[in-house]
Amino acid sequence: MNPLKFSNDRPLDIIAVGRLCIDLNANETNRPMEETSTFTKYVGGSPANIAIGSARLGQKTGFIGKVADDQMGRFITQYLEKNNINTDGVTIDKTGAVTGLAFTEIKSPDECSILMYRDNAADLKLYPSEVSEDYIKQSKALLISGTALAASPSREAVFVALEYAVKHDVTVFFDLDYRPYTWTDEAETAVYYNLAAEKCDVIIGTREEFDMMEKLLNIKESDDHYTASRWFSHRAEIVVIKHGGAGSIAYTKDGGSYRSGIFRTNVLKTFGAGDSYASAFIYGLMTGHDVSEAMKMGSASASIVISRHSCSDAMPTEQELTEHMDTAIYETV
Amino acid sequence: MNPLKFSNDRPLDIIAVGRLCIDLNANETNRPMEETSTFTKYVGGSPANIAIGSARLGQKTGFIGKVADDQMGRFITQYLEKNNINTDGVTIDKTGAVTGLAFTEIKSPDECSILMYRDNAADLKLYPSEVSEDYIKQSKALLISGTALAASPSREAVFVALEYAVKHDVTVFFDLDYRPYTWTDEAETAVYYNLAAEKCDVIIGTREEFDMMEKLLNIKESDDHYTASRWFSHRAEIVVIKHGGAGSIAYTKDGGSYRSGIFRTNVLKTFGAGDSYASAFIYGLMTGHDVSEAMKMGSASASIVISRHSCSDAMPTEQELTEHMDTAIYETV
Amino acid sequence: MNPLKFSNDRPLDIIAVGRLCIDLNANETNRPMEETSTFTKYVGGSPANIAIGSARLGQKTGFIGKVADDQMGRFITQYLEKNNINTDGVTIDKTGAVTGLAFTEIKSPDECSILMYRDNAADLKLYPSEVSEDYIKQSKALLISGTALAASPSREAVFVALEYAVKHDVTVFFDLDYRPYTWTDEAETAVYYNLAAEKCDVIIGTREEFDMMEKLLNIKESDDHYTASRWFSHRAEIVVIKHGGAGSIAYTKDGGSYRSGIFRTNVLKTFGAGDSYASAFIYGLMTGHDVSEAMKMGSASASIVISRHSCSDAMPTEQELTEHMDTAIYETV
Amino acid sequence: MNPLKFSNDRPLDIIAVGRLCIDLNANETNRPMEETSTFTKYVGGSPANIAIGSARLGQKTGFIGKVADDQMGRFITQYLEKNNINTDGVTIDKTGAVTGLAFTEIKSPDECSILMYRDNAADLKLYPSEVSEDYIKQSKALLISGTALAASPSREAVFVALEYAVKHDVTVFFDLDYRPYTWTDEAETAVYYNLAAEKCDVIIGTREEFDMMEKLLNIKESDDHYTASRWFSHRAEIVVIKHGGAGSIAYTKDGGSYRSGIFRTNVLKTFGAGDSYASAFIYGLMTGHDVSEAMKMGSASASIVISRHSCSDAMPTEQELTEHMDTAIYETV
Repeated sequence: MNPLKFSNDRPLDIIAVGRLCIDLNANETNRPMEETSTFTKYVGGSPANIAIGSARLGQKTGFIGKVADDQMGRFITQYLEKNNINTDGVTIDKTGAVTGLAFTEIKSPDECSILMYRDNAADLKLYPSEVSEDYIKQSKALLISGTALAASPSREAVFVALEYAVKHDVTVFFDLDYRPYTWTDEAETAVYYNLAAEKCDVIIGTREEFDMMEKLLNIKESDDHYTASRWFSHRAEIVVIKHGGAGSIAYTKDGGSYRSGIFRTNVLKTFGAGDSYASAFIYGLMTGHDVSEAMKMGSASASIVISRHSCSDAMPTEQELTEHMDTAIYETV
Repeated sequence: MNPLKFSNDRPLDIIAVGRLCIDLNANETNRPMEETSTFTKYVGGSPANIAIGSARLGQKTGFIGKVADDQMGRFITQYLEKNNINTDGVTIDKTGAVTGLAFTEIKSPDECSILMYRDNAADLKLYPSEVSEDYIKQSKALLISGTALAASPSREAVFVALEYAVKHDVTVFFDLDYRPYTWTDEAETAVYYNLAAEKCDVIIGTREEFDMMEKLLNIKESDDHYTASRWFSHRAEIVVIKHGGAGSIAYTKDGGSYRSGIFRTNVLKTFGAGDSYASAFIYGLMTGHDVSEAMKMGSASASIVISRHSCSDAMPTEQELTEHMDTAIYETV
Repeated sequence: MNPLKFSNDRPLDIIAVGRLCIDLNANETNRPMEETSTFTKYVGGSPANIAIGSARLGQKTGFIGKVADDQMGRFITQYLEKNNINTDGVTIDKTGAVTGLAFTEIKSPDECSILMYRDNAADLKLYPSEVSEDYIKQSKALLISGTALAASPSREAVFVALEYAVKHDVTVFFDLDYRPYTWTDEAETAVYYNLAAEKCDVIIGTREEFDMMEKLLNIKESDDHYTASRWFSHRAEIVVIKHGGAGSIAYTKDGGSYRSGIFRTNVLKTFGAGDSYASAFIYGLMTGHDVSEAMKMGSASASIVISRHSCSDAMPTEQELTEHMDTAIYETV
Repeated sequence: MNPLKFSNDRPLDIIAVGRLCIDLNANETNRPMEETSTFTKYVGGSPANIAIGSARLGQKTGFIGKVADDQMGRFITQYLEKNNINTDGVTIDKTGAVTGLAFTEIKSPDECSILMYRDNAADLKLYPSEVSEDYIKQSKALLISGTALAASPSREAVFVALEYAVKHDVTVFFDLDYRPYTWTDEAETAVYYNLAAEKCDVIIGTREEFDMMEKLLNIKESDDHYTASRWFSHRAEIVVIKHGGAGSIAYTKDGGSYRSGIFRTNVLKTFGAGDSYASAFIYGLMTGHDVSEAMKMGSASASIVISRHSCSDAMPTEQELTEHMDTAIYETV
């Protein structure tokens, strides 16, 4: 079962919108960051990771975002281009903004944390006027991610992108990706998450993220079925609710529900699990697989990335994904 | 013809949300403000004026807003209460915000301008958590006004109020009331006007205001019929487009359209025309009049207010309105 | 005794630097502001009042400051010019700043309060580059007032003016004029008051203002003699410490001390007492009177202004001052 | 010749005030940062480097500053303590500020650049109330550095520290350390540099830094002798003006002037030259060496640090310094 229809006469498969930043991953793991001394630099940010994952899987991928006018910004754009991602929608900040940073600390596979630098981040300086209607209508799908809603003008740029997507039948995927540190107020967060989700075809988030959105409306209980049905009364066709170790459940508008399993792997760190899941799940749906098969592809991609050092650079190719699905042990949960 | 249905088992007729401020109207008119020396103080702000107009016409009226913790703020709350407006939804700022001010300059009936004080205005400090679902569900209707969307947290408070209104079948009136000086960016303005309008039952604005909203979507022509039809595909039942001296036109979802005329009057100043029109038009609709009759009531109220010194204090009672409609000359345009 | 020497070959007697704003004085007195309905507009701001007082007394007066590009700003500049104040040093803001406002509430002669509008005030937008060395060196004296130190760039503009004054032997008068509402932090306030006072020849303030400055340095006791001596080790020649109803005391570097008395009057409000005192005291010193005679002139001017409705417009001419000193009852305290 | 006298009955030799941050030095040198992939983390910031240099040379060293409440902040405090620096004056930010970062790019020994992260930096959040008079009076000397003047409240904290130092006869060293990226306005910068320099005993800066300070006062020519004499009329005893490759010149209040030479070395990068110079020069002066010998010690320290990868961790011990001075080639310039 796969309810999505795509406008197939488009030169791009998917355009991601939002955060482009730098991960600085500690090379010395299993210790607190105070005791690490070197870091390796990678491109990061949820939509960047998903776009890289999509491109590795062979999708024609574009990006709408903004980078700092410095060495970090140039590194990001160059890396996207090396990964065959079209950067026509990536603009360069001229106000002295910096590239967002995420220093990762890996104390143990279960105990990872991130030290963020988000002040004056270039990615949040994307203006509505820098979002091109012509660019968006060239794509079958648009991916948005919640962090881009955290501040103006990026917030409004996302809403403009959504208007164009709706106008031109571009299927919209929304990876909630709620990061509290970039937001100032929980009610503010929930308002914009709800307004954006109304315009999306596929919504992917954790139970906690959906709870945050529902708390605004004084909805007390956490009921997956009810949560999904709220969005089916708007535009959604598929709603995926992730329950961490307990797996995920996808609902479709026609009443179907599908549970995913997990591929066994050697976990190095948990970062990147969500982004790799999203990129392969979307890839599965866009290449005509059933919802449950697409979920399995998402799980396979996630199990690859969490066994590697980076999030972005670790994204599998189509061949790696297939091989992993053939060889790794898949467990239902 | 009147397509609106109201939940009649509610203790309040209408709750207005948003700006509460002070007008300081020059007592010496027909000269530039440099040459005026005294000012008279009135309550002002579009939703405040509409609420006062509604209460004068006999509607059970409430307000959701925020006032400064000073003499101006207390004056506003006291004035609302004297006018029988329920102020349970009016909170008091504790951050040192001030009351917004509008100094009016009346050089001639055609040449009026306003000098605004909107920095650190208390009305824009209304938080989502200060909007009560219980309060809103006690009202048949909610009135929002665009200025409250100009900044956070008031912007999010309005969206929360809209969510509650939709949830509880409260009819929403939206007076666009676009004031460029309170906004920083035209695209930002248009994004939030469009998002709010999607959730409203009746939308009232000038042609220029609708143009501003459509420019974001690269809609070039100014076509009233098209403008109205955009909103009928969302939630709207009635869309009123005002063309200044050329009168207004109202569209209803069923395809009807209605043109208003104008009552002759001695114009002192043009301020307050829109607010008085809105309060009487809404009153007409809520008391079961046809759309065209309600428009005529709006025009009558406007012709009374523009012949008087203030906006708020000049609002007519039901008896004054009826007498004026019986005696003044009504012209179609 | 008068220790001050002036460079007499200068076209201007005194240039005031800093705040130019508007007072809106309640016309209905002896009641809270909630119950007043009309206000009269006057030029206000401590250095503006002192400059107007100086000009009325016949001094060739100039001003360095910034006004808003609106009707209030133009009114201020026009009023200064009508009072024979040179406005070559007054620039016009181009950033959309507004004119600072002070609404006065006169509940009784003893119970007056002010409601201030200081957000985005044009006077605090004065840039160092807008302070002209050529202009300052044309004056015998410079008057600064503490409020101009409250925020950048006005703060730096004052320090630049002080550098030029010291460089060109321009005598500097410092009226402390500490208004807590314009400052965010008491230590910050004290730092800049102390740095500025080091460069001044005459310092005039209340005991409370000097206490605020000394608290930073962990000086516990309030000792007038010690306070004055701190500044004599820098550049000061005269230090005046005001004790409200208990009169003032002036110290001179040579060890002299002088107590002022008070002229009996019919007090309407207490606003403007300090500014009128300063303008006539400075005038007395600059016209060669002894310190104690200059203090008496200050007291006479204050007693005139507090019996009238405004601060600025109430400033006496030389003739009014002389007549008042001849006729009013002077009491030592 | 050495004009400085120290209060020798103090438990600390020197307290540095100001910036504590992190250097992230590219491990792959001789290429643009876009092409580097790993970075090594060091403590950085001019006063931090000088304090570390002082402690390595055996001085009893303290610090007044503020660190972020995160892994970077804890790393800094731990590193200072490991280097025997007293951290009683180091407070921890509780507002969510981050640690300032400096990514270094070493394209060639002559072409180095820094990518700074200074938004919301914890070091600039030091409050005047966090500067302890009791702590400062326990030290013979205080070192301030210009960057701490860049923003409030750190700016005011420095002025408070200067007040305490003057009050308790603590000798003040001022390393100008002007970094344009942390300042918004050149006149603002010059105002505070000049106000601070008035209270310092030893001022160390480049010709360009002194020019920036003098431009404010419309001083056109760059005259070392005149520059030095300006400060001798205030409190300075020694003024050092650095001319890059052309060496430095030190002036003493008694009219003396001394030129330094340069030790030959294998330059890896130029960062850290100024800080290492300052730490050894101050050490020389505080241990009773002549000005010219202290300058030679400064040059020796600089030649060691610029041949190594870091700034802070590269600071020589007393033994290393002595050996280097005995073995390296010293050239007059």
